[in-house]
Amino acid sequence: MSIRKGRSVTISDVAEAAGVSRAAVSKVIRDAYGVSPGMRARVQSAIEQLGYRPSVAARALRGSSYRLGLEVPHVNARFMTQIMTGAKQAVSGTPYQVILAPADGPEYSTLESLADGLVDGIIAVSPLVDPAWLEDLAGRIPVVMLGRHDTPSGYDTVIGDDRTGTRAIMRHLFDLGHRRIAHLTEPEPVTAPGTGTPHAIRLQVYRECMAEAGLGDLVQVARRHDDSEPARQAAAELVARHDRPTAIVAGHDDIALDALAAVAAAGLRDRVAVVGYDNTDLAEHPLIDLTSVDQQGVEMGAEAATMLLERLQGRIEPRHYVATTHLHVRGSSVRPTSDRAETGGRDQLE
Amino acid sequence: MSIRKGRSVTISDVAEAAGVSRAAVSKVIRDAYGVSPGMRARVQSAIEQLGYRPSVAARALRGSSYRLGLEVPHVNARFMTQIMTGAKQAVSGTPYQVILAPADGPEYSTLESLADGLVDGIIAVSPLVDPAWLEDLAGRIPVVMLGRHDTPSGYDTVIGDDRTGTRAIMRHLFDLGHRRIAHLTEPEPVTAPGTGTPHAIRLQVYRECMAEAGLGDLVQVARRHDDSEPARQAAAELVARHDRPTAIVAGHDDIALDALAAVAAAGLRDRVAVVGYDNTDLAEHPLIDLTSVDQQGVEMGAEAATMLLERLQGRIEPRHYVATTHLHVRGSSVRPTSDRAETGGRDQLE
Repeated sequence: MSIRKGRSVTISDVAEAAGVSRAAVSKVIRDAYGVSPGMRARVQSAIEQLGYRPSVAARALRGSSYRLGLEVPHVNARFMTQIMTGAKQAVSGTPYQVILAPADGPEYSTLESLADGLVDGIIAVSPLVDPAWLEDLAGRIPVVMLGRHDTPSGYDTVIGDDRTGTRAIMRHLFDLGHRRIAHLTEPEPVTAPGTGTPHAIRLQVYRECMAEAGLGDLVQVARRHDDSEPARQAAAELVARHDRPTAIVAGHDDIALDALAAVAAAGLRDRVAVVGYDNTDLAEHPLIDLTSVDQQGVEMGAEAATMLLERLQGRIEPRHYVATTHLHVRGSSVRPTSDRAETGGRDQLE
Repeated sequence: MSIRKGRSVTISDVAEAAGVSRAAVSKVIRDAYGVSPGMRARVQSAIEQLGYRPSVAARALRGSSYRLGLEVPHVNARFMTQIMTGAKQAVSGTPYQVILAPADGPEYSTLESLADGLVDGIIAVSPLVDPAWLEDLAGRIPVVMLGRHDTPSGYDTVIGDDRTGTRAIMRHLFDLGHRRIAHLTEPEPVTAPGTGTPHAIRLQVYRECMAEAGLGDLVQVARRHDDSEPARQAAAELVARHDRPTAIVAGHDDIALDALAAVAAAGLRDRVAVVGYDNTDLAEHPLIDLTSVDQQGVEMGAEAATMLLERLQGRIEPRHYVATTHLHVRGSSVRPTSDRAETGGRDQLE
């Protein structure tokens, strides 16, 4: 076994040397419950042999920066305003500040940069960061993963109830008489099954609801090509199809705004319903008037920041918080026009 | 003279002790041109006597963080997305990252926190930070002030051409036949004469244009009560007046969105023109369709970040950059309705 010193030794090296999981190493370091004496001895032996020095200790030595960092995938994601607002509310009255680091590219280097003495705790939003890598990071600095449906042992999570939120949308659209309902969402990697991203869950629940309603063959999934680009072209293609949907369920409000733009440009605002997710501040603007799911983003941001403060004050057991959702019905929830609603498009396929 | 040691001695103390301006001290520290040998000797003597240690040197000793910081007044200002996008473009391909620090309160502590080892250079946006304080800060770390019409010697500035942009708006509205034109802007402190903020300039030019057109007695200035709150109520009060304006010139697009909401809620979208400033991404949304001035925010952000990189590579002469403006005319530029345009409201006063 090669013996490496200092920062280049990671929690993964220790886990490998001890023959245990990274989570187990993390538990030993954190002195958490549920660690057998034998496992503790093996891990401590590996830590000594490798010269592993958790940076949590290093941080304690050099003192606090009194900053929390919010890492977001893109600078222009509107929902992040809610998260940031909540995080700032939570630290109000404490010596802590919150800074925002948009990845817009390699989120690993952004997170590393935050962890490298910049902040005392990290709220991570980029949906595709490897959970094992995050467990490593969480061995050095408190981490909350926001949005992703993980159940990690080394870090906390804050999610919205994406299942309930999406089911509420689908029920609402079925009640209005919609059957040909499309889902406009993020590129494949962000919605891949098993990733646990909000968009993977929303897509899955959309498919389930369509199948349960006997509309499985009317499923239409469209995507924007890149999650930093507008979805307007994808939406325009969707509404130009001969089997045009009567309703578009957008992955979130930014995509819904693009869908509304495409629908308006095609002169179909009274014929195609659009529903968003996140209830961002524009949804209730009278010119936008977008039905959307409120997943309490301000509360989510406040909860995430509070979790970091708790960890900085000594909490070691992981916490997993689920925010409730509420569907706000607005003018974009048009009914299907009678010719399409009744034939439903489906008859054309049969 | 009290002798203080270390960080508590500021550039202002040195200037006072040497009997010169802060800018002169800054020049000596930076080894800039235009410093007489006598002045240099006086300043160096004061530096030694007070034990002043410019943190620029401290920064060089502890190495680079490879981060630039963007300090903004509020987390929800849409124009900042352009600035951040440009700044990130400018550092693309360099080892630098850009982080965002929303003040949402005391901007001095936010700027201090950024300067305190967090970043290597700062783009400051909060409009009311004391220029002398900024000169001090710029003695420790490169600073670009974004938006404010200063001509400091110790830091760089990037501004839009607020005069030309505002004149273009007013000419456009006069050409459409508007005479009763209101200005909806930020609270008093942000528009006070002499502050050099974009909003002070835009208000001043609005008044000038009205006066030049012989419409000085039709000037109406409305404000939102707090620059972190929506302007919708102020806009609603404006359009509910008996001498309702036929056009609203908003200080920027966020305020314009609120004005559009109030106008739409009052059923006046075809009767009251609304013009914004910044040409944020929503302006061209077909449901918003807002006439707005593009002041090249992405270019401004890129220029500001480039200036910081130049300073980090040794530039010491201040640079002051002015971005050009372009008015985008869209559907919110309705003409005054004939009954109001021709009587102009003014006749009612006479």
